[in-house]
This record gives sequence, structure tokens and C-alpha cells, in this order.
Amino acid sequence: MNEKHPIDSLVVQSNLVLPNDTNMLNNLMGGRLMHQMDIVAACSAQRHSDCAVVTASVDHVSFNHGISLGSIVTVQAWVTRSFNSSMEVKVEVYSENIPDKQRRFKSNEAYFTFVSVDTNLRPIPCPQIVPVTDEDKTLFDSAFRRRQIRLLLAGKIKGSDATGLKDFFNL
Amino acid sequence: MNEKHPIDSLVVQSNLVLPNDTNMLNNLMGGRLMHQMDIVAACSAQRHSDCAVVTASVDHVSFNHGISLGSIVTVQAWVTRSFNSSMEVKVEVYSENIPDKQRRFKSNEAYFTFVSVDTNLRPIPCPQIVPVTDEDKTLFDSAFRRRQIRLLLAGKIKGSDATGLKDFFNL
Amino acid sequence: MNEKHPIDSLVVQSNLVLPNDTNMLNNLMGGRLMHQMDIVAACSAQRHSDCAVVTASVDHVSFNHGISLGSIVTVQAWVTRSFNSSMEVKVEVYSENIPDKQRRFKSNEAYFTFVSVDTNLRPIPCPQIVPVTDEDKTLFDSAFRRRQIRLLLAGKIKGSDATGLKDFFNL
Amino acid sequence: MNEKHPIDSLVVQSNLVLPNDTNMLNNLMGGRLMHQMDIVAACSAQRHSDCAVVTASVDHVSFNHGISLGSIVTVQAWVTRSFNSSMEVKVEVYSENIPDKQRRFKSNEAYFTFVSVDTNLRPIPCPQIVPVTDEDKTLFDSAFRRRQIRLLLAGKIKGSDATGLKDFFNL
Amino acid sequence: MNEKHPIDSLVVQSNLVLPNDTNMLNNLMGGRLMHQMDIVAACSAQRHSDCAVVTASVDHVSFNHGISLGSIVTVQAWVTRSFNSSMEVKVEVYSENIPDKQRRFKSNEAYFTFVSVDTNLRPIPCPQIVPVTDEDKTLFDSAFRRRQIRLLLAGKIKGSDATGLKDFFNL
Amino acid sequence: MNEKHPIDSLVVQSNLVLPNDTNMLNNLMGGRLMHQMDIVAACSAQRHSDCAVVTASVDHVSFNHGISLGSIVTVQAWVTRSFNSSMEVKVEVYSENIPDKQRRFKSNEAYFTFVSVDTNLRPIPCPQIVPVTDEDKTLFDSAFRRRQIRLLLAGKIKGSDATGLKDFFNL
Repeated sequence: MNEKHPIDSLVVQSNLVLPNDTNMLNNLMGGRLMHQMDIVAACSAQRHSDCAVVTASVDHVSFNHGISLGSIVTVQAWVTRSFNSSMEVKVEVYSENIPDKQRRFKSNEAYFTFVSVDTNLRPIPCPQIVPVTDEDKTLFDSAFRRRQIRLLLAGKIKGSDATGLKDFFNL
Repeated sequence: MNEKHPIDSLVVQSNLVLPNDTNMLNNLMGGRLMHQMDIVAACSAQRHSDCAVVTASVDHVSFNHGISLGSIVTVQAWVTRSFNSSMEVKVEVYSENIPDKQRRFKSNEAYFTFVSVDTNLRPIPCPQIVPVTDEDKTLFDSAFRRRQIRLLLAGKIKGSDATGLKDFFNL
Repeated sequence: MNEKHPIDSLVVQSNLVLPNDTNMLNNLMGGRLMHQMDIVAACSAQRHSDCAVVTASVDHVSFNHGISLGSIVTVQAWVTRSFNSSMEVKVEVYSENIPDKQRRFKSNEAYFTFVSVDTNLRPIPCPQIVPVTDEDKTLFDSAFRRRQIRLLLAGKIKGSDATGLKDFFNL
Repeated sequence: MNEKHPIDSLVVQSNLVLPNDTNMLNNLMGGRLMHQMDIVAACSAQRHSDCAVVTASVDHVSFNHGISLGSIVTVQAWVTRSFNSSMEVKVEVYSENIPDKQRRFKSNEAYFTFVSVDTNLRPIPCPQIVPVTDEDKTLFDSAFRRRQIRLLLAGKIKGSDATGLKDFFNL
Repeated sequence: MNEKHPIDSLVVQSNLVLPNDTNMLNNLMGGRLMHQMDIVAACSAQRHSDCAVVTASVDHVSFNHGISLGSIVTVQAWVTRSFNSSMEVKVEVYSENIPDKQRRFKSNEAYFTFVSVDTNLRPIPCPQIVPVTDEDKTLFDSAFRRRQIRLLLAGKIKGSDATGLKDFFNL
Repeated sequence: MNEKHPIDSLVVQSNLVLPNDTNMLNNLMGGRLMHQMDIVAACSAQRHSDCAVVTASVDHVSFNHGISLGSIVTVQAWVTRSFNSSMEVKVEVYSENIPDKQRRFKSNEAYFTFVSVDTNLRPIPCPQIVPVTDEDKTLFDSAFRRRQIRLLLAGKIKGSDATGLKDFFNL
């Protein structure tokens, strides 16, 4: 099984916020943005694994900033680490509204996990990530902790098995 | 400010999974489902608060079961607890594929938070929840803990302020 | 062939009226609503017949009330009676616009008929309806008359065979 | 108020049946077709009345023929008669599937009624129809009877006021 | 191989400009119109060739006039000439906004080329065009020159082989 | 008026080809791709001009390669040169189908022109382009010739005014 760098799976999608993407207050609906994030993250996971993928989970997503009708929303996604057949994908969202003179700002970020599958939907292994930059390494290392939180929240492991979360949360 | 029961905000949406909702493996895409969940949860938060709402966050969502093309997906949502101007909405998803003889099963669940706002997007207070059934009470009580986890994951409180999480996670 | 109650096939769909659903006067287009009604009615007919269904006809539909952008439209449908492989489905539509302080009202109703089919589109028999409540019984009884009107309007039977219509219409 | 001929309001729309328009049996969904019929009929009513219009009602529609994915569906609509501010629009649907060597056939027809309105949604009078061809005249004359049936079915007139329906139906 | 007249392949589509078709200035987006033109042109090429077709190219398209939200856009297309398995389709676009009292005007025109193909996407010959009217003949004759320009712009022929273009452009 | 580099306006959009984007042969429809190209090019022109833009024209586009359902289509666009208030945008399209093991290839390219406008749709000047790389310079220089061809094809200048086209085409 070969190895890949995070940059190999970088996928970018800039798109216009159209009327049907917005709520009554002329802002992009949260669910519509998650739909767009999922598609870009799936493209990234396909690039890393060289096969079909399915969404396994989405971590906590916050919507702290309204994104107005006519904005350009740029979603970028890349694989931070793989665990056998599953991959963690970091997704960042940047927004700007040029006719409204609103400068580009980071509006959202989230971690998605995908599983690489064959045509019968059976999991198949995907390449290891070899981090290159300092940011790559930080994300690679912290991916283990995020995975523990994810498994803990999904009830798949016990707190007593979640090594290091106690210290991390300073509980 | 008046009080309301969880059942007052129950909103249900059954819908067919159409071709454009699916990936290459003929299964509903995770992001498309989150889009549908967000709309139903927003209707529920509107019903509770009697005003416009915006999505504030989505907690961890898992996708453990494929939902095939032609399935009927039923999303139901209701408010479990409010905190001043924010509301926690529980969303449950049930799936069934009748022509394929696949029986109804619970495919997903998630907690969304919404903020009730005026037309200038400023937060306005919403009614308190008065739990009625045992399930209502369990969800009402645990909403406080989920809110702490949410604030902790978003970096808005410190672990040392997250009373009781240490015991809860058995860390 | 087993029997079923009307309540067994009840399907509900609440949805937001989005910009692309509206005409130039910011009201839900009649055809868009009929599309939504057809999908909910088809889910109901699937639930009753436990197999695939196709739309056979729609009776007269009136649009007496504008439904504005941002409204929550709730469509509910259930099978009132079956005739061999065809089913009559009653569809009711309720609308409310919460940010505009417009209370929930019944905006439309219609009767759809569906035929249960196999994968080669050949009709197959579906369960009988056993009415339970008084409303069930009234709808079950009047379904026969609506079917006669339907067949008469479609030119499939002669007026002289439409027993009882003369009295009903008080012609 | 000027007068117009039926041909002045003729509107035609040919369109391809795309995947999202179809059910699990790869046939155009009835509701999707009604959506398309409503848009074409609305364009026709606009052409006749030279103002904005809203859908008032749809008469009985039958779906006797499956229309397959990839078909060309041609909807044509024209105003048959006006009654003060309301117009009856006849809608005919023709289908053909060229790659499948399926010849063009008439798949559906229906009568829609529209009301011409000002920007405050208040009804405003529209031009009278002057029928020209024999078909125009037949449709113009029978429009009165269809209107009586429509009002009778909607409970707006009594059977005893529906002059001539008894003879027409041969009841 | 039989012969056909241009009128045999005439396809017309009138449609309403809906919110999601428009940019922030409430005008139909150019790309959305090209999408509609491509579908109508494809229907026309199917009618001429009696088989499946794929888009091969689009010539220069200008957008000189804004088309506002709520307009009726009428696209009409017909085959002007065929070259073995490829067809040139002329597409004309007319716009009018009835509620805004904007009269019908020609907003765009373009030439599309399509190739008739079998189910394996291999080109198959299509009927010759026999022009009938003077306009048919003018378009039939000039199609040869447009084809030379197309091949020249695509780098498929050299300028020295483009007989007559020098005179035509008066270069 | 300030100056900008081509790279400043680079916009990228990767997207999945979904069922409704495809024709009966499971390939992306040409018009759907042009819609996507137009949106990405418009984002690029907004980035360059820092204001709203409208599509003015599209040059010849060829579709030489089928792009299959489930492919990742990557559209990238940047401004090559501006002429007062109009901008030429180069658009390149790359396609790959990862589950089908089809490697990334350049499937299309085209030149779009946009005009920067104020909110009343009146043209306003946009920054000059200062080319940096060799490719920038080549595109900047050849933009003048493409503009002449565009004006010639649109009948806005005479061949005798199109300096240098005769030599370029080797006519």
C-alpha cells in the first residue's frame, strides 16, 4: 500500500450563493453549506484513496457568521490522516461578497470522515498519510485525539479507553 | 415569556430519495441528508420560538447505514430545551425501501442548535421548554451536558468549567 | 390478501417554501405544490400496498389561498379505499408563515389515485381498507361516488351507469 | 377591454425527461409533469391577459401512459375562454422517446384556470376570447359546462343551478 | 438514407425565468441560458437524426440584453444542415416580461453542432437536409462557411484550406 | 485605477457529475458544463473587477471528450486581459473518474467575456492586467486578436479593420 501527502488530496470548490440556497433572511442555509462541504470532502477522499467513498461521520460544525446571497463560498478539503479504510478530511470554508465589498473571511471548518469502499460497499484499505509541513504534522497528530472523541461521542469506546482526553480537555 | 412542551414543536418530513440525492453507489449522500435534517429542524425551531431562526451548530452525525435510491426517508425534529435565545433540536431519521422490501429502521440522529432572531439577525429570547414525558425529561436534563461538550469543542469554555463531563465520560 | 387501516398509510411532509418554488408575486406556484402532493401521496400508496406505485389520476384541485415565500407547508396523505389494484389517496395541505405571524390554515385538499405495480409496470392487487373512525367510514363510503365521477369525467363509464350521482348532485 | 383569439395565447414547451423527474421505474412522475403543465399554462394566461396570473384550479388529470426517462415531453397550452378575470387554459401533453424509437403520442390533457391579478394580488379583468376555428368554438362553448362542473365539485353552486349538466351526463 | 426539411426538426421551449436562474442583479445568468439552449438544440438534433445525439460544439454566443426575473424565455431550434454524422442547429432566443410590460424581442442566437451516435457513442450517419424556404437555403449555404470557421478556430484545418473565408471576412 | 495580475483572479471549482447533469448516455450534458463554466468565470471576473459582472459573450467551445457520471470536473478560470470595462476570462476544464480509474485529462477550454457593472447595470472601468509569467504574456498578447475575431463574428467591426487576422489565419 503506497503513501500519500495531504496536499495530494486537496480539492477546492468556489461557488456562488444562489437564491434557493438561502433562508428568509437572505443568508446561506446551514444544511445547504454542509451539502456542499460533503461533496468537496468526498472528492478529496476519492483523490486520496483512488476509489469510491461513503461519508461515515461529521464532527461538530458551528455557524458563527451569516453568509449572504451573492457571496462566493470557497470550500477546501484535504485528508489529514487515514486509519486503515477510514480517512479524516479537514474542510475549511471561506466567504466573501464582492458586490457588497465584504472581504474574504474564514466562516466555517469541520472534520468529515469517509470510508473507502468497493462497488459492493465493502471497506477497502487506503494509503497512509505522510505529513510534510508543520501544519500537516499538527493535524496528523491531533487526528488521533479527534478520533477518540468521535468514538466516545458515538458510544463506540469507553471514556476509560480514551487515553489522554482527560488531560486534553483539562477536565 | 410563555412556556412550551417539546411535542408543540414536533415537525415531520417524509420524502423520496431521488436520483440527484445519491452518489455513484445509489445511496443517499450524507450532505444531502444533512440539508434535509437542517430544514426540518429549522421548521421545528420556528414552531417553538414563533419567529425566524438561524442554524448555530450541528453536533456529531454518524452515517452507519446506506439509504438506497427510492427509499422513503422520514426526518422528525423537536425542541428538547432552550437556553435564552438558543434552542437544542433533536433530529431522528428513519428509512425504509418499500419496493425493495426493506423495513423501516432508524438510520441517523443528531442534535442541531438554532438561535431565534429578529429581521436584523439580532438574537431574541424564546420560550422555555417544560418537559412532559420521561423521554422529554431525560433529554431536557442531558441537554445541559451536550451544551457543555458543544462549548468545549468550540473552545468557548475551558474543561475546568465543564462541570460533570469528567464523570460522564468516565475519563 | 390482508387488510389495512387508513392510519397505517398516513404520511406527513412539512417543508419550507424556497425562492424557486414561488412565482413573481412571491407565492408558491400551484404546480410546485402539486408536485409535492404527488410525492407524499405516492409514499402513502406505497405504505398501503407494500410495493411500487404509479400515479393514475388527480381529481379537481383548487388554489384559493396564496402561500407565501418562507411558509411551512405541511402535506398529509392517507389511503381512503382501494379498488383491486387502485387506491384513492386523500391529500390535505396546511400552511403557516411563522416569521410573518400567519397562523396555520388548511390551504388545499385533493384526491389522487395510484395503481400498485410490479417492476414490469403490471398492476397487482393491493390490500382492502377497513375503515375505523367515523371520518374513515365517511371517506370510505364517498370514495365510491368520487370514483364514479372520475370514471364519468374520463369518459370510461356512461352517465346512465353512474348510480346515484343524479341524486348526489341534485341535478 | 379588447378581444383576443385562442391562437394568440398559444405557448409550447418541449423538454427532456431528466433523471430527477422520474420515479424508481424510470418513468416521469405525475407531479413533476403537473408542475411543467402549470408553468406553460401560466405563460399562456399571461400572454392572454397581459398581466400577472395565479393558478386558481386544475381539473381532473389522468395519467394513462408511462413517459420514460429521456423522452421529449411537449406541453402546449392556450386560453379557450375567459370569464371576467378568470381564464380557462387547455393543456395538451405529447411524448416521444427518439432513442427508444417510441413515436410521438398524446399522453395527457387537462384544463387549468388562472386569475389575472395586479401586484397586490387583486383580480383584474382580462380580454374576452373570440373563437376562430371550429375547434376554438367547440372549446369555447363547452367551457361553460366545464365551469359549471368545476363550481359544482368545489361546492360553489348547487346541482339545481347547474343548467344542462343532467342532460350532458345523461344522468 | 432519407432526406428531411429544416421545419421537421423545429423544437420550441417557452419557460419562466425563476429565482435560481438569476444573478444578483435579477437577470438570467448566461450559463443558465446556454444550458436551456443546449437542451432544446439536442431535442432538435434528435428529431432530425432519429437517434441519440451529443453536443460537439457551440459557436460564439453574445449576451447583449439583460433578461429579467419573471420573463418568458422562448428558445427555438432547428437543423440547418448535416455533414455525415454531424448537424448544425440554429438556436434563437426571444424574451418578454409581461407583468413588466416589456415586449417580446430577440435576445440571443447561436449555432450548436451535434453528432448522432449509437448507444456505444460511435457516430452514425444522419439524414441530409433539403432546404425549402429562402431562409432555409441561405442558412444551408452559409453553414459550409460557418463549419470552416469552426474547424479553423478549433485548429482542425489550416487557413489556407478555408476556401472563401478571406473574401467573406474581407480581410 | 489599480493594476492586477492574472493569478489574483484565479478561481477553481471541483464538483461531482450528478445524475441530473447527464444525458441518456450517462455523460455530462454540454449545456450543464457551460453553466458551471459561466459561474466560475463570473467569480473570477468579480475577483478582478471588485464589483458585479454580467456575461457578455462566450467564444467557440468544443466538446471532444465524454465526461461520465460520477466524474470530478474541475473548472479553473482567470482574467487574461481587460479592455476598459470588459474582461476576457480563460476557462479550463479537467475531468477524472476515480472509481472508474480514468485519469485526469483536459476536457475543454473556452474564453468568456464579462463586463463589470454598477447596480444599475451601467458599465464601470476595471483594473488593467499586468502579465507576469510567460503564459500570462502570451495570453495577454493573443487576447487582442481573439477580441478582433469576436467583434468580427459579432459583426461589430469589418474584416478590413481586423488588423493581422489575415496573417494569423494564413488566409
